[in-house]
Amino acid sequence: MAQSTVKMMMREFDAYIFDLDGTVYLGEALLPNAGETITRLREMGKRTVFLSNNPTKTREEYAQKLTRLGLPTPDSDVINSSYVMVDFLQRRMPGAKLFVVGEQSLRDELTKAGFTLTDNASEVDAVIASFDRTFEYRKLQIAFDAIRHGARFFATNADRYCPVPGGGEPDAAAMIAAIEACTDTKIEAVVGKPSAYMAEAILGLLDLPAERCIMTGDRLETDVLMGLNAGMAGALTLTGATSEAMAAQSDIIPTYIIHHLGELLPI
Amino acid sequence: MAQSTVKMMMREFDAYIFDLDGTVYLGEALLPNAGETITRLREMGKRTVFLSNNPTKTREEYAQKLTRLGLPTPDSDVINSSYVMVDFLQRRMPGAKLFVVGEQSLRDELTKAGFTLTDNASEVDAVIASFDRTFEYRKLQIAFDAIRHGARFFATNADRYCPVPGGGEPDAAAMIAAIEACTDTKIEAVVGKPSAYMAEAILGLLDLPAERCIMTGDRLETDVLMGLNAGMAGALTLTGATSEAMAAQSDIIPTYIIHHLGELLPI
Repeated sequence: MAQSTVKMMMREFDAYIFDLDGTVYLGEALLPNAGETITRLREMGKRTVFLSNNPTKTREEYAQKLTRLGLPTPDSDVINSSYVMVDFLQRRMPGAKLFVVGEQSLRDELTKAGFTLTDNASEVDAVIASFDRTFEYRKLQIAFDAIRHGARFFATNADRYCPVPGGGEPDAAAMIAAIEACTDTKIEAVVGKPSAYMAEAILGLLDLPAERCIMTGDRLETDVLMGLNAGMAGALTLTGATSEAMAAQSDIIPTYIIHHLGELLPI
Repeated sequence: MAQSTVKMMMREFDAYIFDLDGTVYLGEALLPNAGETITRLREMGKRTVFLSNNPTKTREEYAQKLTRLGLPTPDSDVINSSYVMVDFLQRRMPGAKLFVVGEQSLRDELTKAGFTLTDNASEVDAVIASFDRTFEYRKLQIAFDAIRHGARFFATNADRYCPVPGGGEPDAAAMIAAIEACTDTKIEAVVGKPSAYMAEAILGLLDLPAERCIMTGDRLETDVLMGLNAGMAGALTLTGATSEAMAAQSDIIPTYIIHHLGELLPI
């Protein structure tokens, strides 16, 4: 079924949105054809935007990394789940007092955007759960108290673990689950991929209709699903977490399956 | 429906098993009729046994508290979820190397029982999750690595939170959920109430058939359910977490519903 889509004629889009790890690069090296393809798309006048669910690095860090690897990229062409969280909260709870189960970079982005961070459970308007390698019981206790006091409960992302050489680091799914379990309260929204909030932030940045955009990534259930749900085309690249066999068993049917980013170039 | 069971004639049993908080005492005071009833049962030659799901206090501490409140109790008449975990592991994994997400008292009980505790994920045979007010990311990482290396995964108890004056403390459900979420691995066994492992440890201690025992507690889904599942009678006391209205809506039908422990005395 899915295999037949490989041979589908590649359409031309106005904006090309890319997942990063496993799609554009792996660790410290660009994946085959990634650099040439993205450079060529830019020469053709296409917009290129890069996405990450990882809230522990800033947009600047991703832009610097892409630039270092040979793809000069402004900070404004990178969107991560911290950025989407700021956008989400500014639209819905401007001026809210927040308790953050997260790392310093997320705390900094929220403070810079004008939100007040507090450890005082009784004044917390929303608990923000995130990938937090400084997670500890004290934070769990404050989140518990705040939610029982009526605070709302959101998360940047819901990844189970973040791949690192030789293994993984427990990611935001662990922090969310711990808070959900003790409070018996389901998280209200996760703003990272595959949520509509991330798509909303991207389309807000691009100011283009969704059907002029294509989202490319190595995971069906986050990258491709988000694109399809938002009305974009969705391309699965086989350079990362998903094999062709895995794709054939999934209910999520990408618009295109490609072996490398070079296949995105319109014929 | 359930109300009619209040008027059921109280049978006589050989052993009376009690939950503690909300059943025998609340905080630092015995509940009405609790002291007199347990003293009278003992005078009649009945066995009395006390249970707690809380793994952070030792059997000695519970025995001392009961004694202080006027009910002299030997350590051996108290069973908590740490004790059941030791019993469970001794039967199934003697000599196992364990990584404990838990507090010092649990670590001590496991060490005393001859188990080796290790932080080296690659040599862990089983991860033991528990109520842990010293929980931190470092422990989550070791549990993650160990389970991905093939370690088994058990917990002392699965309570969402432990009631404390004015609120609660996030309990073992949070630690279990965090580990389950990042590893995508379901816990294999929770040995505390309402599990059959706890009933097995009680009946092993009493050396009596289950039908000669009655389990009394203030929670249907832990205390009463455990008793009924094990073949004991199960009495719900309305002195704690469960009201008569809540009981009427539950699928768990206790053998008796009582207003205080005095109603346990055979007519």
